Amino acid sequence: MATEIKAEDLLRIEGARVAAVEANVRYSNRLDLVVMELAPGSTVAGVFTQNAFCAAPVQVARRHLQESKGQVRYLLTNTGNANAGTGDRGIEDALACCVALAEHTGVPPSAVLPFSTGVIGENLPVDRIAAGIPKALAALGDNWLEAARGIMTTDTRPKARSVQVDCGDRKVTITGLSKGAGMIKPNMATMLSYVFTDAAITQDLLQAMLASAVDRSFNRITVDGDTSTNDCCILAATGASGVAIRQDDGALFTRFLDALQDLIQELAKDIIRDAEGASKFVTVDIQEGGSTQECLQVAYAIAESPLVKTALSASDPNWGRILAAVGRAGLQDLDVSRISVYLGNVCITENGTRAPTYREEMGQAEMNRAEITITVKLSRGKAREVVWTSDLSEEYVRINASYRS
Amino acid sequence: MATEIKAEDLLRIEGARVAAVEANVRYSNRLDLVVMELAPGSTVAGVFTQNAFCAAPVQVARRHLQESKGQVRYLLTNTGNANAGTGDRGIEDALACCVALAEHTGVPPSAVLPFSTGVIGENLPVDRIAAGIPKALAALGDNWLEAARGIMTTDTRPKARSVQVDCGDRKVTITGLSKGAGMIKPNMATMLSYVFTDAAITQDLLQAMLASAVDRSFNRITVDGDTSTNDCCILAATGASGVAIRQDDGALFTRFLDALQDLIQELAKDIIRDAEGASKFVTVDIQEGGSTQECLQVAYAIAESPLVKTALSASDPNWGRILAAVGRAGLQDLDVSRISVYLGNVCITENGTRAPTYREEMGQAEMNRAEITITVKLSRGKAREVVWTSDLSEEYVRINASYRS
Repeated sequence: MATEIKAEDLLRIEGARVAAVEANVRYSNRLDLVVMELAPGSTVAGVFTQNAFCAAPVQVARRHLQESKGQVRYLLTNTGNANAGTGDRGIEDALACCVALAEHTGVPPSAVLPFSTGVIGENLPVDRIAAGIPKALAALGDNWLEAARGIMTTDTRPKARSVQVDCGDRKVTITGLSKGAGMIKPNMATMLSYVFTDAAITQDLLQAMLASAVDRSFNRITVDGDTSTNDCCILAATGASGVAIRQDDGALFTRFLDALQDLIQELAKDIIRDAEGASKFVTVDIQEGGSTQECLQVAYAIAESPLVKTALSASDPNWGRILAAVGRAGLQDLDVSRISVYLGNVCITENGTRAPTYREEMGQAEMNRAEITITVKLSRGKAREVVWTSDLSEEYVRINASYRS
Repeated sequence: MATEIKAEDLLRIEGARVAAVEANVRYSNRLDLVVMELAPGSTVAGVFTQNAFCAAPVQVARRHLQESKGQVRYLLTNTGNANAGTGDRGIEDALACCVALAEHTGVPPSAVLPFSTGVIGENLPVDRIAAGIPKALAALGDNWLEAARGIMTTDTRPKARSVQVDCGDRKVTITGLSKGAGMIKPNMATMLSYVFTDAAITQDLLQAMLASAVDRSFNRITVDGDTSTNDCCILAATGASGVAIRQDDGALFTRFLDALQDLIQELAKDIIRDAEGASKFVTVDIQEGGSTQECLQVAYAIAESPLVKTALSASDPNWGRILAAVGRAGLQDLDVSRISVYLGNVCITENGTRAPTYREEMGQAEMNRAEITITVKLSRGKAREVVWTSDLSEEYVRINASYRS
């Protein structure tokens, strides 16, 4: 559903260097350890999973981000093992990895944020990770594509994007990486994602920009309704471009924020385009809702319905399943006789029943597309929310029945 | 996962007669029209889907039950077409079927309750149903197994149960039928289910007994989290046994209610045993919760997690997915370090992390069973709720990608 990104599409970020190496965390012959370095003076913001069983590295990363007041120098990521459900031992292991990297580089351990993804409930092989760190440090450079590969698990392709923003006579650059294909319903966070810019941005503003961008991107996608224990999204600003982004600088601020939000939204959509076993990219667009909350309720009832998702997989314009999902979304006093449903531009349901103009072949033509938009107009107000999802195929079941994630 | 019921297992109910015929509603050579007759003086109680897009027959049945004050004489069910999402025309069509049956039998139309199940969004073939009615009336008798077959859609086998309750020198009998295999997460109701008894029970008491029984049976099962537009559960009492069940008759009342609840719970479990594509019967038992509501939140987060369900399908003791589901269930201030998880009698997680006694082969042995119990102890209070569900297999996707339901 997407063409694979090439190394030359990814722009270097002055003040940031990355590397991916093979550390045999769970499998051999796989890039499974990624180190990302930030120049002194960089600022870093992060959002993390709201899953109550949040993994040890998430707890440590959140604490280090606070202790260092955003003065983070290294992001250390391993795949193959999520270090989740591992109790106190898991915290010690995540800290030990930070200490190993800190000793090699002379920074305090709190300047290192750890990230892990992979199997839940097994202890982290700290020795193998520590052994891989010197190799990764030696390889640091503009290895963005390798880093995007190095954070993959069931992903079929690396996910990375770059954009440049004109700032008068200078430019600032944003480059972002993400991973994720299943266990995807981020909650105030995302699967692993790292976004870098060479703009200079204060820690507080950076955090606010990240929260706002994530809310309309990673927090609006779902593959299977399952929230990971290890979701993290990090935004780092090195300042090396010499261009400062400030909230009171109207036009430039807006241009930068728009570019950042677009890039993060595309990274989120890349996850849906690579969703496990999926063949469709589905936009669920809920309009005329009474509130954001009720739009999201309806959107997720549709986007997570196994029956809607299997119909999408089969390209079956079985719109009754969409109505049934809207009907069980739990909206108070929903007047179904005012609801309209569209597949693409085709009006399927008008006033709660089949539109007089609708013919099965019109719905079939829309369903045959690889990118499908389902629009529901609720006639209850002016709120509108969009969620992106994928279909549910036999392949999804096959992947998740065989992969111990 | 269950042995098929035989005709001789089903006990006749004095005062009730049933028949199933082929009416070619959607397919030919299929029992798709069922008429159930109740003797004058019978009482009838019903609970219906809470889906806002509730189907036309559900709206008419609810209205007729009210208008007739429970003096219902006929239940008329067709499969192949749900008459849902059909607007005003759907209501007229459902009424027309009631009128056709009323004209043949001389009862008022409000003494007929209509039920439909099948494809959503197509108009009901009233002519073919009306043409089938005389044939069905002529065949009325103790055809319980045929009636159970006549209400099936994707079900692989008929679901029916009988039980007798000793009442001193007499006995009362209860016989129930149900259908359902997918689009199963009943909400204050169920897929189609009909339960008959020859006890004499007032309309008000009957309704209260039904609501109580349904709450711990049909309202505690989920296959895919999708609530049908056509769910109905009907309880009818003919009184023909001459035994009256009254709330003030302590021992007999309790014995009858227990038998009724057991029977309805088994009918609900039969639906899970026949869940689309499923090979496991899974009990999710949430203990030590702070409230019923939070137990149910955790239970459904597990029971509807595609990742837990695909692990169950593969018999993979991937308990990290259970933890992740508990963690995203949305409980306030959940202290994960106090949570224990069991597969069968095997303690997998203790204090939020892997139990020291746990070995993979112990979990594997439990996962290999056809009936699996997942127990979560929350250490937050005394509430306990049990939900029944199935696994998610490639076969579920195949069925729902090919069947236009």
